[in-house]
Amino acid sequence: MGSEVEGNRAIKVVALCGSLQKTSKNRGIIRAAMKMCSESIIRGMEMEDVNISELPMMNVDLEVNGTYPPVVEVFRNKIREADAVFFSTPDYNYSVTPLLKNALDWASRPPNVWADKPAAMASVQATSRSGQYHLRQIGVFLDIHFINKPEFFVNGVEPPQKFDENGDLIDQQLRQRLQNLLLALQAFTLRLVKGKSP
Amino acid sequence: MGSEVEGNRAIKVVALCGSLQKTSKNRGIIRAAMKMCSESIIRGMEMEDVNISELPMMNVDLEVNGTYPPVVEVFRNKIREADAVFFSTPDYNYSVTPLLKNALDWASRPPNVWADKPAAMASVQATSRSGQYHLRQIGVFLDIHFINKPEFFVNGVEPPQKFDENGDLIDQQLRQRLQNLLLALQAFTLRLVKGKSP
Amino acid sequence: MGSEVEGNRAIKVVALCGSLQKTSKNRGIIRAAMKMCSESIIRGMEMEDVNISELPMMNVDLEVNGTYPPVVEVFRNKIREADAVFFSTPDYNYSVTPLLKNALDWASRPPNVWADKPAAMASVQATSRSGQYHLRQIGVFLDIHFINKPEFFVNGVEPPQKFDENGDLIDQQLRQRLQNLLLALQAFTLRLVKGKSP
Amino acid sequence: MGSEVEGNRAIKVVALCGSLQKTSKNRGIIRAAMKMCSESIIRGMEMEDVNISELPMMNVDLEVNGTYPPVVEVFRNKIREADAVFFSTPDYNYSVTPLLKNALDWASRPPNVWADKPAAMASVQATSRSGQYHLRQIGVFLDIHFINKPEFFVNGVEPPQKFDENGDLIDQQLRQRLQNLLLALQAFTLRLVKGKSP
Repeated sequence: MGSEVEGNRAIKVVALCGSLQKTSKNRGIIRAAMKMCSESIIRGMEMEDVNISELPMMNVDLEVNGTYPPVVEVFRNKIREADAVFFSTPDYNYSVTPLLKNALDWASRPPNVWADKPAAMASVQATSRSGQYHLRQIGVFLDIHFINKPEFFVNGVEPPQKFDENGDLIDQQLRQRLQNLLLALQAFTLRLVKGKSP
Repeated sequence: MGSEVEGNRAIKVVALCGSLQKTSKNRGIIRAAMKMCSESIIRGMEMEDVNISELPMMNVDLEVNGTYPPVVEVFRNKIREADAVFFSTPDYNYSVTPLLKNALDWASRPPNVWADKPAAMASVQATSRSGQYHLRQIGVFLDIHFINKPEFFVNGVEPPQKFDENGDLIDQQLRQRLQNLLLALQAFTLRLVKGKSP
Repeated sequence: MGSEVEGNRAIKVVALCGSLQKTSKNRGIIRAAMKMCSESIIRGMEMEDVNISELPMMNVDLEVNGTYPPVVEVFRNKIREADAVFFSTPDYNYSVTPLLKNALDWASRPPNVWADKPAAMASVQATSRSGQYHLRQIGVFLDIHFINKPEFFVNGVEPPQKFDENGDLIDQQLRQRLQNLLLALQAFTLRLVKGKSP
Repeated sequence: MGSEVEGNRAIKVVALCGSLQKTSKNRGIIRAAMKMCSESIIRGMEMEDVNISELPMMNVDLEVNGTYPPVVEVFRNKIREADAVFFSTPDYNYSVTPLLKNALDWASRPPNVWADKPAAMASVQATSRSGQYHLRQIGVFLDIHFINKPEFFVNGVEPPQKFDENGDLIDQQLRQRLQNLLLALQAFTLRLVKGKSP
């Protein structure tokens, strides 16, 4: 983990959204998750939505003497300092979105700041599950510890309506599923932290 | 296919490079392939290196009334008019590069201009093969017909040196393998074109 | 293709079921497909359900002087003589079933009798789509040409009931989807055959 | 974990080999790993090679009133009582072997006895890495916690010779890599056990 979770300090989770769409339902999931943390529906967990839209397109030529462009360094520090990672992303054409892949790749550059982080993921989209499975496979190389269960896929278009026109989560059942996902991430994070301590 | 290959007209192949690096070996592969076409080492095939570095990061909010940003439209037309596609790309972290994924996603927007195109791929990189397999899986949704054989993976760092400091292909054996790859793409393209004609 | 489709000869399709269950809905799909062929709902196509339940568990030690156990040879000949292959199989734990994998492996032994066959697949199961994507990836090595579209996934437990207690297909809409799948396989098979002829 | 690892009790690891071949190099890996455990090169770890060759081909019709055939029950108990799992398997045609998939599927039947087990994997084979990635994806559904690093792939045919004609490991460098793999499995197992304790 990038930092030690001692005493009663809250777990710091960074959230990454794979979509740039203004009314993205995946961002709606992140907003709902952040609210659960800030309102202590989930206790002992803080979540920050990290902006990845300003990162330049991945290009190792932008690395100079082992340093990265400032906006990349800022992003890398956010990941480094996190205890855990929460991804919420659509599938694009059966795989990860370029926006998210770009963030994954920048933070993988040496030293890989994803290493040994626990993580969970949610996806609102209407098609396949492959994007999450590609993300998990990427995680093998990045040394991310994804929780196995629960898997969280939401069909965003099937009735009943689960999001409003701004992409905000309005479905109570889905809110409960999201809460369970966050609790599982929290439990696994604590388990890995506690298991590592001397 | 985006166009009919009649009589003795050459097959038009668009080449996409998954790397932005100046001395990219994957771009070196494309340069070598283009030279084979222009010097008639491969006959009946034209290849154009399509620039994908100027595309904005995928965002459906950029679509207005079913039209795309001009740079996206230009790119989509290149794909639409091609008879076949040639990808040359590294793996980044066991998957496709964000640069390439971005291009794949833009051209997939309705109408999907990848549909029914034959394609082949080459990868110069030192790690896994997963990037190509992710690309193939993306191709299922995009309705791309990838050739199965030969698979073309090159370890770019193992001796003997296969590329010079500019990323230009200098290995004769590898050149032969590349030629075989292009011939297989050409044969499969002609087969699909001929098999479709009335 | 294992054989030339000339004149008006019907296309020979072999069907492989990935389940041993007596009331398998995937076998129900094959029965329905065979009936469509025999009753000329699909014209110009014959389908045979090939038994793969008697094959020994894959073991190269069973190969003696380049020959295979008799039951394996019989199976390999069925594949060799087919113009196309139709798979109908559940996912088991996000991947192919061992029964089907065993058949795939035996027929891959030299000479690989899957080579250059067009194929399509159907899956009745309640979970992920990964089994089909694993099968497609296996197909790259085996040189199988899977059709991209339509993809055919059926949730076998969601209402309305689509299969009776014997596993027989009783849903008219699903029957139509199956018919479209078979027509797509037929069209792609003819395209590959025609495109190859001199 | 199937059992608590308390005090100084050794970790119990079950080893599964994906090949039936007599001189299998993957079984040679397991023999070498068992020797490291029994000779205390790896301390605090016991390894048992579990026979999966007698399991019937997966078929839910063989389940009667929630009980399994005796040979399946015996196997399931071995998994249930293990603290961790070690897979050593070749790729067959870019995926898992039917032998191994069959064992995975039987032990997944309710109650899934793989749940929450840490695991590691080794592969001796000459082709792709996809088999391991398919196995990892299967592990998501089975709730297996695979270690990310080190990945262990061995090209069994490239010089220098690493196995003798019986499939026994004879290469010192490879022995060291295997030792590192086992130590990583042990560390992750202890971490998950310790992290879970109250």
